[in-house]
Amino acid sequence: MKLNIAVLPGDGIGPEVTNQSIKVLKAIALMFDHKFTFKTADVGAVAIDRHNNPLPDATLDLCKSCDAILFGSIGHPKYDNDPTAKVRPEQGLLKLRKELGLFANIRPVKAYDTLLDKSPLKQNIIQGTDISIYRELTGGIYFGEKHLSEDGNVASDLCEYSREEIERITHLAFKAAKTRSRKVTLVDKANVLESSRLWRKVVGEVAEQYKDVTLDFLFVDNAAMQMILNPKQFDVILTENMFGDIISDEASVIGGSIGLLASASVGNKYAMFEPIHGSFPQATGKGIANPIASILSATMLLEHFGLFEEAELIKEAVDKSLKLNISTPDINSKYDNVTTDKVGDFIEDFI
Amino acid sequence: MKLNIAVLPGDGIGPEVTNQSIKVLKAIALMFDHKFTFKTADVGAVAIDRHNNPLPDATLDLCKSCDAILFGSIGHPKYDNDPTAKVRPEQGLLKLRKELGLFANIRPVKAYDTLLDKSPLKQNIIQGTDISIYRELTGGIYFGEKHLSEDGNVASDLCEYSREEIERITHLAFKAAKTRSRKVTLVDKANVLESSRLWRKVVGEVAEQYKDVTLDFLFVDNAAMQMILNPKQFDVILTENMFGDIISDEASVIGGSIGLLASASVGNKYAMFEPIHGSFPQATGKGIANPIASILSATMLLEHFGLFEEAELIKEAVDKSLKLNISTPDINSKYDNVTTDKVGDFIEDFI
Ligand SMILES: CC(C)[C@H](C(=O)O)[C@@H](O)C(=O)O
Ligand SMILES: CC(C)[C@H](C(=O)O)[C@@H](O)C(=O)O
Repeated sequence: MKLNIAVLPGDGIGPEVTNQSIKVLKAIALMFDHKFTFKTADVGAVAIDRHNNPLPDATLDLCKSCDAILFGSIGHPKYDNDPTAKVRPEQGLLKLRKELGLFANIRPVKAYDTLLDKSPLKQNIIQGTDISIYRELTGGIYFGEKHLSEDGNVASDLCEYSREEIERITHLAFKAAKTRSRKVTLVDKANVLESSRLWRKVVGEVAEQYKDVTLDFLFVDNAAMQMILNPKQFDVILTENMFGDIISDEASVIGGSIGLLASASVGNKYAMFEPIHGSFPQATGKGIANPIASILSATMLLEHFGLFEEAELIKEAVDKSLKLNISTPDINSKYDNVTTDKVGDFIEDFI
Repeated sequence: MKLNIAVLPGDGIGPEVTNQSIKVLKAIALMFDHKFTFKTADVGAVAIDRHNNPLPDATLDLCKSCDAILFGSIGHPKYDNDPTAKVRPEQGLLKLRKELGLFANIRPVKAYDTLLDKSPLKQNIIQGTDISIYRELTGGIYFGEKHLSEDGNVASDLCEYSREEIERITHLAFKAAKTRSRKVTLVDKANVLESSRLWRKVVGEVAEQYKDVTLDFLFVDNAAMQMILNPKQFDVILTENMFGDIISDEASVIGGSIGLLASASVGNKYAMFEPIHGSFPQATGKGIANPIASILSATMLLEHFGLFEEAELIKEAVDKSLKLNISTPDINSKYDNVTTDKVGDFIEDFI
């Protein structure tokens, strides 16, 4: 298969982890006789520094001309603590999601048997957890109208959803549930929010078309609790943009490290694959960033194009690396000298 | 001291747990020679059933005429799954908060040494945790304009904050921090939301007046993770309404049971005390509801009026009951026949 892949390494540890994924994908291409080409472009703080724009046109054009996008991470502290900054790295990511219509962010959460002791949660709580989170990604309060009064003393954000926005991701979630344990849990705050009540209504209607899938409802505050008390109760979680942001980061503690969690952001035309961790500026260039999340996003990329055998091989390599303690310090209590690069090399060699 | 206390038992397990608090407060009054009077009124689903109004005028008037309010819990499944219901129990609680100007919800989160094994989190993670969450309670997306399009296909909620709303709770949080470990963590989503950027700006300015308190910022997604990875890093958490709802329910897992967590909702004129758990309809009338959260809200009520010795005595009684396993099934793995009433009786007798 021929695949043109746009690579957007971004900020902080983004470039170093993305490099490992490229290495691994190249090994896969060699092994299975595919032709993957990689073209790199700027996004985030680095793009602001170089082009004064967190998402330069050239980057967007490249993404649109490629089959898939491999994304690193973005964000820089110099913007975080400046509430008056007009341009911010995050705008690049948000605009990219919107422009490419990546309306569904899919985040698998699994407890690895080899890493059970790494989680802050007790083993009996997490063992066997297997969740797929479907987070709406191009609507809600992230993209609603924002307002700041002239005197700067009143600020607002609008959370808006339409039936269509809810329907399309709901179908994806129910289709996924059919291949899994046939249960969808809608996380919302329907006892307070009008938008959540629309979610509850529309999702209920769509559910009628999937008679073999059970639909549950959970208020987001309760969901935040249940995710820790009993994560095994969940199969597919479906939720809006902001709740999905919170709940999926929270869920990352189950696996023992956020450095393991990958995600796919898909739409009708384009697809982007990225680790769920951020740019982790303190770790930049130190070789301590865990590349597994990025490498697993590369496997989601392969699966997206039906290359299941290839994806499986990478997952095997990842499992092996975890078993052998070829892991970065976040999950390695035995050796503290395994670098980002070494993990990538091991997985490359295995393939 | 003379105190007129309005009692709003509400729905589900609300009445049974509130009864224990009244029992305990009466014992305190007897012991310390105070005069507490209790007047009860309807709120929530029960008020809809009886008066077709989740917050009847008589209830609001009673609250305004009393020194403090003891609240049970509200909510009923028949409204949760009906997105078209025009009247809902929660409106009663929200209107009460707004009408009484209860702008700060204070939720202490502690790991009880006797209950360390009850938490889904590992002991070393939670031992020593002592957090006080300051959640803004009368603004944000809970109270912003709501809209549903005529055809019912587009719904929205507005999240709005003004400088004044942020300032007043920020002062409370910093004052509290001065009596604790002198650290405030603002939880927001300033990389995406305009309202969060206003929070970051205003809180930063107020912080200047409290030079001996450290101010930290954390994005809400990261906070949801840090709360589980390392809860001991937190002292006072300050946040807006919706994030506070989610983060504080999540934090409840630290103590081992949401049945232990109390809260105070305070404003300039009024103060209300309530357990953070909901109405838990499945448990209603079974005698399995944990009354500790309600009883501890009664101690927050006493502290609010400077009755620290009295509050301390109740806390001692609670500790004792936990040590002796005089606890409801949620935290009692030894005996399964200790009812709500028995826990209340024990604490009453101890006093
Ligand atoms: C960087 C930020 C804007 C982003 C989000 O909130 O969506 C990130 O947290 C994520 O989850 O991908
Ligand atoms: C019942 C509901 C409206 C309420 C809220 O979201 O504020 C509850 O969850 C709480 O935290 O007191």
